[in-house]
Amino acid sequence: MPAFKSIEWGEPGTVRMLDQRLLPHQTVYNDYTTYQEVAAAITDMVIRGAPAIGVAAAYGLVLVPANSMDGQVKEIKAELLKAVKVLGDSRPTAVNLVWALKRMGKVLERPELDTVPKLKDTLLSEAHAIAREDAEINRSIGRNALPFIPEKATIIHHCNTGGLATVEYGTALGIIRTAHECGKQVFVLVDETRPRLQGGRLTAWELLQYGIPFKVIVDGASGHLMRTMGVDLCVVGADRVAANGDTANKIGTYNLAVVAHENGVPFYVAVPTTTIDMDTPSGDQIKIEERPENEVTHVGTWQITPDDTPVLNPAFDVTPAEYITALITEKGVVYPPFIENLKKLFTS
Amino acid sequence: MPAFKSIEWGEPGTVRMLDQRLLPHQTVYNDYTTYQEVAAAITDMVIRGAPAIGVAAAYGLVLVPANSMDGQVKEIKAELLKAVKVLGDSRPTAVNLVWALKRMGKVLERPELDTVPKLKDTLLSEAHAIAREDAEINRSIGRNALPFIPEKATIIHHCNTGGLATVEYGTALGIIRTAHECGKQVFVLVDETRPRLQGGRLTAWELLQYGIPFKVIVDGASGHLMRTMGVDLCVVGADRVAANGDTANKIGTYNLAVVAHENGVPFYVAVPTTTIDMDTPSGDQIKIEERPENEVTHVGTWQITPDDTPVLNPAFDVTPAEYITALITEKGVVYPPFIENLKKLFTS
Repeated sequence: MPAFKSIEWGEPGTVRMLDQRLLPHQTVYNDYTTYQEVAAAITDMVIRGAPAIGVAAAYGLVLVPANSMDGQVKEIKAELLKAVKVLGDSRPTAVNLVWALKRMGKVLERPELDTVPKLKDTLLSEAHAIAREDAEINRSIGRNALPFIPEKATIIHHCNTGGLATVEYGTALGIIRTAHECGKQVFVLVDETRPRLQGGRLTAWELLQYGIPFKVIVDGASGHLMRTMGVDLCVVGADRVAANGDTANKIGTYNLAVVAHENGVPFYVAVPTTTIDMDTPSGDQIKIEERPENEVTHVGTWQITPDDTPVLNPAFDVTPAEYITALITEKGVVYPPFIENLKKLFTS
Repeated sequence: MPAFKSIEWGEPGTVRMLDQRLLPHQTVYNDYTTYQEVAAAITDMVIRGAPAIGVAAAYGLVLVPANSMDGQVKEIKAELLKAVKVLGDSRPTAVNLVWALKRMGKVLERPELDTVPKLKDTLLSEAHAIAREDAEINRSIGRNALPFIPEKATIIHHCNTGGLATVEYGTALGIIRTAHECGKQVFVLVDETRPRLQGGRLTAWELLQYGIPFKVIVDGASGHLMRTMGVDLCVVGADRVAANGDTANKIGTYNLAVVAHENGVPFYVAVPTTTIDMDTPSGDQIKIEERPENEVTHVGTWQITPDDTPVLNPAFDVTPAEYITALITEKGVVYPPFIENLKKLFTS
């Protein structure tokens, strides 16, 4: 097992997160004691990855009662509603954040939680449940994907979707881990994933720990390698899957999917069902976050571009469903046509 | 006019080059007095861009007689043949290097050049001619492309193909400059072009000087922007075009071309005819340079990846002809079918 935890609750009221901005050079854990700090940490990408930020928001909420144990329930509930709003606005694209907050919000409606300690305990056990389920879901996704991974497989992976992006195992990277643990010979081509280099920094860091063979490539090299060395499949995570299968994920995913499609390389999206948003009809309705220019103009402390260089920095893109071979969820594999089959998944 | 020269000859025997590795932060000119130094400068990418390295190799050859003016013609010619080999091996993909050395080599066969000073003068005037013609060719390419540029055009450009990549004007960037100079409203989305960031570092630096509006994007964002903001065309240069139109260019070009094709965005390749290699039947025969791992693991002095991260770093890719709308040369525009039409271009 790797020697890190992306996020952890600490009594009496602390959310501890591994500061992913400093990886792979420094392994620093930050402690947060207010929901505002947690929201800022999500915005600043101390923690990232759709499942992980859902869990961070859930634990962030628990800080409200935890740090006011002698307060009035009514006031704490009002503060919690404010916290739901602030945490929900910390990043716009991943739906897990909204989902986790909605689930936590249901606790607030329970009339029997009429003291702050009861409220805190129940919120905390709900947050723990979300975290625990996330790890179980990841394992199920990994198992469900096994039939798609050849015994000897070269796999392109984009961004980071491992233990850092989740509570402990990973979605797309979880699939790769499961295949590796089951004895398949997997070799990963790791898209470095500009601008924030989650592949080169974080996925490389994880794969070194897991002993899974890989090489880092620039994002522009994926098509060339499909043509020249042969690639068996691509697997990515997602920040939000619309009801028609359109998938929002880290910028560069769409280019990868189109090039895979053109080269006949299967393209799989690994998602907990919590990342599927049946209330969003298609990708056109997904809000794409624009992030600061300095993510493009600088790498670490190094300035790349001339002073005053203008930048466009969309953090995500939408891959239309037609480029997706299948969605791999904890409840099973969903094939096209996604509109029908996603409906079935949620009603079965 | 911009205040830089990518390459210049200095009497009695110096090749001066702008050190493009240090841009945009420092504008440093290096002087080279031996062909070995020039070859190393090409390998190390002090100068880069297919047309520019052709000219660098030509001037590099002139250093042999220039620095041994009292030598024996026979020995100098033997040394020149060695220099042709060393300079020709300095980078493998761009054909202009081979072409320029072949053209310079013809001078060596002229029996009337029976003294070292005669040899030097003739080689130098040939190198000057190559340099002068390169600038003229670039202007012609720019004019020939004008009909393809709408009055208001959003253009994606990959790598650097401007005054830095040539003697003074540019190929693909020359097209953009011509359109801008003719009063068209061009807006450039500049692919930053990992790993060496020729877009973010060099193209941005040039466009700021020319006053042409642009924004830098990560390479993975091109498809998203075609889908969401609308892109009128892509234009790139080339390192070698095969007889069937397959085009070797900076890594990432193939992904861009596939995504453009999928989005119905025209994809133009701007090339001097010297970049077209009729002796190479298809892209499969083009040798793709692999470059050092540290181009991917580091940006400037900043280390991205964990220690001991393995990397795959192909410097170029091949875009099959089917993704190319047209080749724009100084002799005119070449449309598919490229096999027939390139033959016509060279026989007309």
